[in-house]
Amino acid sequence: MNRSVLKFGGSSVSDFTKIRNIAEMLKHRVDNGEQLIVVVSAMGKTTDQLMENVSAVTENPKDEELALLLTTGEQQTVSYLSMMLNDLGVNAKAMTGYQAGIKTVGHHLKSRIAEINPETFNKSFETNDVLVVAGFQGINDSFELTTLGRGGSDTTAVALAASNQTPCEIYTDVDGVYATDPRVYKQAKRLSYVSYEEMMEMSALGAGVLETRSVELANNYDIPIYLGRTLSNVKGTWIMAQSDLLEKKAVTGVALDTHMMHVTISYPLPDNKLLTQLFTKLEEGSVNVDMISQIVNLEGLQMSFTIKDTDAIQITNILEKLSEDFNALDFKINEEYVKISLIGSGMRDMSGVASKAFMTLIANDIPFYQTTTSEISISYVIDAFNGERAVANLYEAFDI
Amino acid sequence: MNRSVLKFGGSSVSDFTKIRNIAEMLKHRVDNGEQLIVVVSAMGKTTDQLMENVSAVTENPKDEELALLLTTGEQQTVSYLSMMLNDLGVNAKAMTGYQAGIKTVGHHLKSRIAEINPETFNKSFETNDVLVVAGFQGINDSFELTTLGRGGSDTTAVALAASNQTPCEIYTDVDGVYATDPRVYKQAKRLSYVSYEEMMEMSALGAGVLETRSVELANNYDIPIYLGRTLSNVKGTWIMAQSDLLEKKAVTGVALDTHMMHVTISYPLPDNKLLTQLFTKLEEGSVNVDMISQIVNLEGLQMSFTIKDTDAIQITNILEKLSEDFNALDFKINEEYVKISLIGSGMRDMSGVASKAFMTLIANDIPFYQTTTSEISISYVIDAFNGERAVANLYEAFDI
Repeated sequence: MNRSVLKFGGSSVSDFTKIRNIAEMLKHRVDNGEQLIVVVSAMGKTTDQLMENVSAVTENPKDEELALLLTTGEQQTVSYLSMMLNDLGVNAKAMTGYQAGIKTVGHHLKSRIAEINPETFNKSFETNDVLVVAGFQGINDSFELTTLGRGGSDTTAVALAASNQTPCEIYTDVDGVYATDPRVYKQAKRLSYVSYEEMMEMSALGAGVLETRSVELANNYDIPIYLGRTLSNVKGTWIMAQSDLLEKKAVTGVALDTHMMHVTISYPLPDNKLLTQLFTKLEEGSVNVDMISQIVNLEGLQMSFTIKDTDAIQITNILEKLSEDFNALDFKINEEYVKISLIGSGMRDMSGVASKAFMTLIANDIPFYQTTTSEISISYVIDAFNGERAVANLYEAFDI
Repeated sequence: MNRSVLKFGGSSVSDFTKIRNIAEMLKHRVDNGEQLIVVVSAMGKTTDQLMENVSAVTENPKDEELALLLTTGEQQTVSYLSMMLNDLGVNAKAMTGYQAGIKTVGHHLKSRIAEINPETFNKSFETNDVLVVAGFQGINDSFELTTLGRGGSDTTAVALAASNQTPCEIYTDVDGVYATDPRVYKQAKRLSYVSYEEMMEMSALGAGVLETRSVELANNYDIPIYLGRTLSNVKGTWIMAQSDLLEKKAVTGVALDTHMMHVTISYPLPDNKLLTQLFTKLEEGSVNVDMISQIVNLEGLQMSFTIKDTDAIQITNILEKLSEDFNALDFKINEEYVKISLIGSGMRDMSGVASKAFMTLIANDIPFYQTTTSEISISYVIDAFNGERAVANLYEAFDI
């Protein structure tokens, strides 16, 4: 029997009409002989609404209770979708994360999937054609409900595909993966195929259609992911192993990350204690530092690094506290920068990408302040006002 | 350690202010050295809202999915109440029915509790002072969520009290159990104590403060139930074993059941096939027949019985179908009757209750059409317009 995992995000199931349309599509596939595992998120703004209620209850909810509360959102969606399917004559069964046997480890609100027993599914498929599973959730060793954190429903879908050895189709409100953000560069083309590693690099560099985590999981278990728009005829993107892709280009995509901040600290003396304390506090506060550059000379120490703009409050607190111990510390937090990145598995074999990118920026009068490279990407920190122009210039220079 | 089970119904937890007031009261008791198991229902109209959503989804929801959906209501309340408690510095933990180890058997929406493991509680109390448990729900042998049906949260509370060997306090929006409905007879007094069997009889006869089922359970395990108004200083009613009660009166209460219908069928011939089919269909349709009287003579068969008015549609369908097979069948459904009942454990030992009641009704020109007696109750079907007057007359005659 042909088995697949399909996942629908919150905006795809935001009202009952949308859920019914999805149910009808699923019926059509069942009629064609498929067995389906369908992962859904909470309907539309349900999670936001629950969080709003929480803020009326307490400023400091315990993570355990928050997870218990939030999991009701998906539990409601699976009930509704399964009712719709049964109403259409499809044998469907709704399941919470723990009923589907999704065991998790780690923090209540940022759990990782530890184990899924595929037997649960084989058994349930004996009497059902569609199993509707609540995304984003599981149960830990202490029998407490947990959520998987950002992008969690995608991770649920990929993990279920891995344990059932099926492909995974992720339906969302975009048509697929683009070589660059079409809102930034209109002519951007949609990719039919992209490799796991390119996709991970794109996600990590700010082109966030899928969380890095779910792509990593798909990569580990070699699960092809189809990413496309819900109920659309437009062909989406397959994310799969590099070896399965025919074409190999130097640069597959351009990512522009506008959600970053650039931090510069200076101190009149070289001081390892200062740096040790800084990085300890950054780690304690879960602030991820991206690009780092350091200059130590007679005038002292100067260091720059980039972080996500969601850490704005955290970084300000950390640096202000540090200034109490180190009076002469001076720091600047600048949000007027963006990071532009070129991504492509072909970079490994093709030389000259860095120099060509470098020359393209120079030729177009776009100064850059920091640069960093990985095996399959090159990134530059540039002025925010140059962002869109840089995307267009690089896109054209590399004939993406 | 002093351990108690407390239960709060939907109207007691209909908004966050009410939940916070309950949390503060619980904190006060914890500060006085108690360990508390707190059972809560879904907030206010949550269940109605979910049912309304369902009607937008399908006319025929599967019971399994309906149970899965409805259980989210209580799951949300336990999360909020536990957050409030933790916010007040109380060590509290929220639990769904299955996390509390409530195993059920039977129909998904009308399950019965089969088993509760008290060890779950002993273990959780090692690090917590309050365990907040979702009422009305459990999990069956197939690992499917179930609901307990009408009055289910009360049953959860009593079952938890039984397995933890503690008393059970049920808080609601009435001050306690009254000798008769104070809306019908203003001078009705509130009872400080009432026996399990009197309470069951009162519930069965329409004075429905508590479902018969939870009182029966309390009776079986000898769990005293306190019934009172949420956060009120008014003293409520203890429901306990007869042997623990000092005072014994012939009549403890008067119940007036206005939610009944009186059905009369007549057929020109005595016909056992007709009756067999009728009662088979009534059983199939889960229509409970209460008082039955039958006359068979030369003019044929005449039978009357009373049923709950919630079965109105069902009974009409059944009798219309029956008329197709038995053309000469004639039937009348009358809602202009009520049932008045006298209840008291003392009836067992004291004679003359029936005749005194009989004479009271006669003396006040109140005709009755059917009568039935149990060990501790006598009921009469009378005209609806005589209902309130009959309550007052009997109340005064028996000096309740």
